[in-house]
Amino acid sequence: MAASVDLNADLGESFGAWKLGDDEAMLRLVTSANVACGFHAGDPALLLRTCREAAAGGVRVGAQVSYRDLAGFGRRFIDVTPEDLTADVIYQIGALQGIAQAAGTAVSYVKPHGALYNTIVGHPEQAAAVAAAVAAVDAGLPVLGLSGSVFFEEAARRGLRTVAEAFADRAYQANGTLVSRREPGAVLHDASEIAERVAGMVMAGQVTAVDGSVIPVTVESVCVHGDSPGAVEIATAVRDRLVAEGIAPSPFC
Amino acid sequence: MAASVDLNADLGESFGAWKLGDDEAMLRLVTSANVACGFHAGDPALLLRTCREAAAGGVRVGAQVSYRDLAGFGRRFIDVTPEDLTADVIYQIGALQGIAQAAGTAVSYVKPHGALYNTIVGHPEQAAAVAAAVAAVDAGLPVLGLSGSVFFEEAARRGLRTVAEAFADRAYQANGTLVSRREPGAVLHDASEIAERVAGMVMAGQVTAVDGSVIPVTVESVCVHGDSPGAVEIATAVRDRLVAEGIAPSPFC
Amino acid sequence: MAASVDLNADLGESFGAWKLGDDEAMLRLVTSANVACGFHAGDPALLLRTCREAAAGGVRVGAQVSYRDLAGFGRRFIDVTPEDLTADVIYQIGALQGIAQAAGTAVSYVKPHGALYNTIVGHPEQAAAVAAAVAAVDAGLPVLGLSGSVFFEEAARRGLRTVAEAFADRAYQANGTLVSRREPGAVLHDASEIAERVAGMVMAGQVTAVDGSVIPVTVESVCVHGDSPGAVEIATAVRDRLVAEGIAPSPFC
Amino acid sequence: MAASVDLNADLGESFGAWKLGDDEAMLRLVTSANVACGFHAGDPALLLRTCREAAAGGVRVGAQVSYRDLAGFGRRFIDVTPEDLTADVIYQIGALQGIAQAAGTAVSYVKPHGALYNTIVGHPEQAAAVAAAVAAVDAGLPVLGLSGSVFFEEAARRGLRTVAEAFADRAYQANGTLVSRREPGAVLHDASEIAERVAGMVMAGQVTAVDGSVIPVTVESVCVHGDSPGAVEIATAVRDRLVAEGIAPSPFC
Repeated sequence: MAASVDLNADLGESFGAWKLGDDEAMLRLVTSANVACGFHAGDPALLLRTCREAAAGGVRVGAQVSYRDLAGFGRRFIDVTPEDLTADVIYQIGALQGIAQAAGTAVSYVKPHGALYNTIVGHPEQAAAVAAAVAAVDAGLPVLGLSGSVFFEEAARRGLRTVAEAFADRAYQANGTLVSRREPGAVLHDASEIAERVAGMVMAGQVTAVDGSVIPVTVESVCVHGDSPGAVEIATAVRDRLVAEGIAPSPFC
Repeated sequence: MAASVDLNADLGESFGAWKLGDDEAMLRLVTSANVACGFHAGDPALLLRTCREAAAGGVRVGAQVSYRDLAGFGRRFIDVTPEDLTADVIYQIGALQGIAQAAGTAVSYVKPHGALYNTIVGHPEQAAAVAAAVAAVDAGLPVLGLSGSVFFEEAARRGLRTVAEAFADRAYQANGTLVSRREPGAVLHDASEIAERVAGMVMAGQVTAVDGSVIPVTVESVCVHGDSPGAVEIATAVRDRLVAEGIAPSPFC
Repeated sequence: MAASVDLNADLGESFGAWKLGDDEAMLRLVTSANVACGFHAGDPALLLRTCREAAAGGVRVGAQVSYRDLAGFGRRFIDVTPEDLTADVIYQIGALQGIAQAAGTAVSYVKPHGALYNTIVGHPEQAAAVAAAVAAVDAGLPVLGLSGSVFFEEAARRGLRTVAEAFADRAYQANGTLVSRREPGAVLHDASEIAERVAGMVMAGQVTAVDGSVIPVTVESVCVHGDSPGAVEIATAVRDRLVAEGIAPSPFC
Repeated sequence: MAASVDLNADLGESFGAWKLGDDEAMLRLVTSANVACGFHAGDPALLLRTCREAAAGGVRVGAQVSYRDLAGFGRRFIDVTPEDLTADVIYQIGALQGIAQAAGTAVSYVKPHGALYNTIVGHPEQAAAVAAAVAAVDAGLPVLGLSGSVFFEEAARRGLRTVAEAFADRAYQANGTLVSRREPGAVLHDASEIAERVAGMVMAGQVTAVDGSVIPVTVESVCVHGDSPGAVEIATAVRDRLVAEGIAPSPFC
């Protein structure tokens, strides 16, 4: 049984006048912050503030890289060529490295966002393109993602450390992938149910899929969302429950 | 008299399907490449190719930072707050650092672009914001700009090395600033006249302004443009003339 | 004394995943909706929904045109050329006309947004550029703005109807212009104070400026904001107070 | 045999400082101009000039609608929802209608661009979304596209006139769709070969596919490209050949 586990959340997802999520509250709960890099969200001034607050709170900063799609918040598949995708991801990691450096911290890992995350579970060319980008910038950067994904295969092939995450508030299909947000029931909302579910994933290494089957999950980090209603309450419940079980929230790197 | 001088040009200013300038040819002529950072031009895949070619040719890479304005190519003043501007510049430097790192080179200096370049000649808040950005990312990065500018004062105050450039093909006002591109006669077009003028600037440290007065210019680097018609011919003429005078083109850093 | 007055608010200012304001509530309170046109806010799907709701509620739709600046929410002056500005405004009006047409309504007027609004109070070239744009699309479209502005002069010169508005929740300078949002005290927050102030503006045609002087205001429409905290409460208070005074909220066109 | 045929080309595809194609020359050759609408190319000032020139030359203006993707020039499939796509297309048509109105002309038809064009040959949801957008703005607007496409089915179902085009310089697959630009041989380059091929398509209603098979093509309009090298030469050859065969270039509407 794990004595500790990482808690990660997507942060820095406001843009200009538009606010999304309660970053301040989330930064008191998580141990790793997946900070947007400007392609789906995150204006530079916000990213700088977010990285400063993460640094002040001892929270690790990860680069949450995305398709270039502000209008779609990175939630739409784009059939970008591998060459373009690699360069887009390098650009985003570098941009956040600059921001993190100026904020007195550093980018400690990379996590793909939204449609890119989902796509590279099974899309070999795009998965390879993202892995190549991380390796090209810094082969010492771990990647956070889904265990068993093509992305993890491609990352491992390039010598990148892969860190498997579980999703606190998302429904799983029997094959271990997430139910699409376009489907009903894709997102769970009850804080205590979610906390219970996370405890099971971390302690027993398994979760109940939408079809009722119990499937194994590898959990080095638990993703709690910061952009859904009740996000702070849910993250608090998850953290409290883990602490109550004797599992310390702690960065994976 | 100078035994060597740097030649710089703006490169990486295409975007997606749109091509601008002959980067390949310019990279054989200049010693420093001001590579766009995506805010006024430069998609990441292009930037990666440009940095690779610069690395292969031994050309230094500088971050050509800009207002966020693709539609205006960074040529329009934007009344951005200092806080936002600092973050925008940090973001751009970091992005190009990531790209340069992946290309096997590094960002060696920073040069503001277009309207930002012109604005911070005399705009204290924006000049300070840009200087602060460079210092926050890496205080060892020199800045390339106009001697006597408020930007250079702000940069020097933060311990940044300032590198003074002269413009090969731009008309000067009597006060040492450039004639606006919106004015007639702002841009010179005759290659041999330009080469003659540059030789005078580098060797004698002076140039004739639009009102006929002869004004002093400090020249550690000569800016040759790559985005105007005949750019390659002009840059070739400038380089050849300098070499003929025994002045070696050589990076300033 | 006015028997009726128009109430206008900025709507359709969300963008993709980012929500701003409570459009549904505001549409029950105002008589004219200044709908964003995509340059500072407003993705097309949102604009279509907003126009449909406005049509269903009998609320007039106006084109809230802006500088091209999503990152700055149109709140930053951009030194765009008159030629570009005219085309940008024509484009935006046309886009919203298409959306409004599809929603079963039409664009009934034009109101500049944010920094553009403030700039053309006194910037002759940009004021002329905006007025020319409106006239080029449809000289029958009224413009909503500030009485005494250069924009109104330029609009009147082209035969456009000018509709003078007052701001419910903004502080005025003694010269009749608004206090910049960057200044303290620029925005009022107390609903009953604001309602009282609006009643005075509509009934007596005057308002107290920040320096204590009482200045005249021409009010054919009252602007209530939808993007500040308590916006709905304030708009409700303003509307209720006007109704209590026997002044019917009614579109100006 | 046809006594006349329409010639269409993509125009207005520059953006800000970036130029693409020789619009001036193409406007002397074609009878219908597919003018970009700002989502893949085309800044408003350029669009205004293009529409003015089209109006002056008696060339019809069509709205060349696209995915929102400046960086990819609209050449990448985006998995946008039908609701968003419909609104995006309405917005673009409206924007160009405003521009055309200001230029003294009007939008006479709609033609999808790039990846959207290719996608809706076979993607029912997106095809329906585009057809619904056109019908929502003006059910009298014809759509230009590929005969036999799902898009044409969806357009016809909504009462829209469908106008079948053939591509002068693109290779066809045996099923009548175009060979992807990512494939070798997708684009033909020899002007006289292309002119010969077009004459065959217009007069005999058939073309030779990449596998050597001769397939039928319906041709109410011939698409000549303006963004490839030698475009003007090719378009001239096509036009001259048609005229020599007694087929007059003439708008389809």
